[in-house]
Amino acid sequence: MSLVEARGTPDTSEGEDRPRGRRQRLLGYAALVALPAIICVVALIAAPEGSGAAGAGHGVDHTTAKLLLAASGVLAVALGAGALAVRIGQPRVMGEICAGLALGPSVLGQVAPDVSDWIFPAKVVTGLDALAQLGLVLFMFGVGQELAQARQTRVERGFALVTCASFLVPFAAGTATALWLWEEHSGSTQNPLAFALFLGCSLSVTAFPVLARVLTDLGLLKTRTGRLSLYAAAVGDGVCWVVLTAALALASGEGAGGQWWKLLLFVATAVVLLGPVRIWLARLLDGSTKHSPVITSTLCIAGVAASAGVTALLGIHQLIGAFLFGLAWPHISGKGDDAVALSSVTTLAGLLLPFFFLGFGLSLDLGDLSLDADGALLLAGLLTLATLTKVIGAGVAGYLTGLSRARSLELGILMNTRGLTELVVLGIGHEAEVIDTQLFVVLVVVTLVTTAMTGPGLRLIWALRSDPRV
Amino acid sequence: MSLVEARGTPDTSEGEDRPRGRRQRLLGYAALVALPAIICVVALIAAPEGSGAAGAGHGVDHTTAKLLLAASGVLAVALGAGALAVRIGQPRVMGEICAGLALGPSVLGQVAPDVSDWIFPAKVVTGLDALAQLGLVLFMFGVGQELAQARQTRVERGFALVTCASFLVPFAAGTATALWLWEEHSGSTQNPLAFALFLGCSLSVTAFPVLARVLTDLGLLKTRTGRLSLYAAAVGDGVCWVVLTAALALASGEGAGGQWWKLLLFVATAVVLLGPVRIWLARLLDGSTKHSPVITSTLCIAGVAASAGVTALLGIHQLIGAFLFGLAWPHISGKGDDAVALSSVTTLAGLLLPFFFLGFGLSLDLGDLSLDADGALLLAGLLTLATLTKVIGAGVAGYLTGLSRARSLELGILMNTRGLTELVVLGIGHEAEVIDTQLFVVLVVVTLVTTAMTGPGLRLIWALRSDPRV
Repeated sequence: MSLVEARGTPDTSEGEDRPRGRRQRLLGYAALVALPAIICVVALIAAPEGSGAAGAGHGVDHTTAKLLLAASGVLAVALGAGALAVRIGQPRVMGEICAGLALGPSVLGQVAPDVSDWIFPAKVVTGLDALAQLGLVLFMFGVGQELAQARQTRVERGFALVTCASFLVPFAAGTATALWLWEEHSGSTQNPLAFALFLGCSLSVTAFPVLARVLTDLGLLKTRTGRLSLYAAAVGDGVCWVVLTAALALASGEGAGGQWWKLLLFVATAVVLLGPVRIWLARLLDGSTKHSPVITSTLCIAGVAASAGVTALLGIHQLIGAFLFGLAWPHISGKGDDAVALSSVTTLAGLLLPFFFLGFGLSLDLGDLSLDADGALLLAGLLTLATLTKVIGAGVAGYLTGLSRARSLELGILMNTRGLTELVVLGIGHEAEVIDTQLFVVLVVVTLVTTAMTGPGLRLIWALRSDPRV
Repeated sequence: MSLVEARGTPDTSEGEDRPRGRRQRLLGYAALVALPAIICVVALIAAPEGSGAAGAGHGVDHTTAKLLLAASGVLAVALGAGALAVRIGQPRVMGEICAGLALGPSVLGQVAPDVSDWIFPAKVVTGLDALAQLGLVLFMFGVGQELAQARQTRVERGFALVTCASFLVPFAAGTATALWLWEEHSGSTQNPLAFALFLGCSLSVTAFPVLARVLTDLGLLKTRTGRLSLYAAAVGDGVCWVVLTAALALASGEGAGGQWWKLLLFVATAVVLLGPVRIWLARLLDGSTKHSPVITSTLCIAGVAASAGVTALLGIHQLIGAFLFGLAWPHISGKGDDAVALSSVTTLAGLLLPFFFLGFGLSLDLGDLSLDADGALLLAGLLTLATLTKVIGAGVAGYLTGLSRARSLELGILMNTRGLTELVVLGIGHEAEVIDTQLFVVLVVVTLVTTAMTGPGLRLIWALRSDPRV
């Protein structure tokens, strides 16, 4: 009975199976194949005459076609630019950001406005924006997760000083600069406190995810400098988001107006998320019941979206809700199904981020960067200020906690990686009209330059000192 | 040097690190923490007076909030309904489909029209539709992949007869019925041939993915019945999509009008995809170069979207392009990075499908189901016809190839699972206006009922015969 043995599960009741005779099978072919085929042909021939081409062009939904082509184009350009960036020693995300900028009015809109209009009509942009929003909240969820994990880092002597200094020095510089820039560059919300807090944030952000990538690429992840910079970036980013929340509340007038109850509701939401929800999720995912990864990741994404949506309704930015859910989601290690689910959420965020870069690129025209004397001074000044305060703040603190000079400089340069997180912060500030468009564009360029500096800067100081790390 | 040992990578040059004195660190705190903090406070106090609440309500983007809340709601309802379905012995996808229907005008629109209007404004629907489109093309990519894999199944004697019969018998019945239904239920495209082909397809679809799930749940995956039904479903679905392509081309007048070149271009696209692209992809993914899963899955999704978008531009439905790309994507087994990438694409499709069910639910009002004499007759007739032709076609063929009576009936009931694929087919036919709304709603109900029948039907015949499979 080789037939039974070939089966995966033994199945005794099928033992009665026996091949029928040849004649029976021929009859079967005649009745079950030939006859239906004939019926088909007859029925199709007998089909009444109709006005065949009446609906010419019907069923061709060009919006869908454009949406799919645009999505494919965005992903393909991001892939290509990312690969190019890696080849020239930059983090992949730099390439993806540039790809997004290139597809906006800065390049494609200049070079081929017709193509741009054809492939990005309003409906397609709305659709792609939904993908971007999903990608962005999942990205912020990841940032929250990483901060939650940073709590488990073994904190060594010196971590506190480096963390405080690398946040506070640029932050102070930002708020002080706000006094000068306020007159000319505040957005339409006209709230000076929000403006100052926002400028402080935008100088003090270090992009945790990009930093982690750079450290991995350079093989620095497990060194003391690497761990110090990651910890300081995670905590600093956490503080930044709290300050940003306050700035946005001020800008939207939630605090000043009679809408304190919204702020209170938001605080209540945060407490519920970090209290009961966190405990419930930890029990759910640590329990003995097995969940399929699709279900766990659906639950996770539903939670992120709900938390973000509620926060947005309360007048606080949705990303802050997503960040809170990231803090609440239990830290999962290992290779189990829940870890697979978490990694597929992260993969999804990575997949969708190019759509955020596209939206970002569409919202910004680098042609707005005025390079007259004032504009150039603003750019050069902010670039220098951002770099110096980060390098000095983090570097000197690192030196005082016992790093060598070279390692301190390394730490300072690492903390100057603003990358993706800074773009998100800037986008929020611009959208909420805390800063004007010119300052927005200048700060975007500052972000790109400081992020691009990291890799080459490190390689340069290693080469100059004939450092064994090269 | 326990410090060096604790590091992941030994790093001799850091040997020069030495803790600085206590006094130095205190100075550091004063200069790097206290001083910036004072600067911040002074700068914030010195901030000029502004019209704080000028932008009250600004930065609160309720579209985004609604989009996120709607997304979260859709996922949560799908999760809940899926879990409920599993509890009552139905495949999870049945619950998810019902969740989508419930969120449309059939239930939520009836019960709470205000809630429905608030959470699903046009812009949110456009955004969610983008998610649905992405989910759907990825799902069809998976169907193509599965058909490509079915080619590697060891084909046994009898597979051909079962496959032909289980496709042709319902197909012939569908085309023949079209002669009767044509007058009253054809859509506005008024193409009788397209109508007949479409009705044939809609009776002969077996949902491969749902069938696979049902077989897994019932532990039949490795039995001869299981393998037969899966093979027949995969090949039958492949043939169905080819016939559907022809029907859509007829309906859109591409063939009849002077637009033969579009059809030729489509054929050329298909040849390029299944020839050069397939070979190039196989080389790319079998090569020794390692790709990160995010990159491979981005490439995959970009390819699916491009193939779908081009097909849609050529007047053929986008899902057929996605299906072709699924055939072209190399079959990957094992646990390597490329397999992870493929599984994350599948996971993504699963995550996004609830948005398709929502779109489907929004497009359809079960209240349109007229249950007067004619309507009830139509429903009962089509339900009986669909079930009988599948059960007889597949069952008798199975019996002739050597299955026992019980196993043949089992096979017939399994092949009657129409599920998700049928809904996709129906949605396409309705959108292209090949069938009218009433027939559409009736066929949707037929799909739901035949799919829901599978599990209970099998359990019933096992119980009646005291079958050891129970």
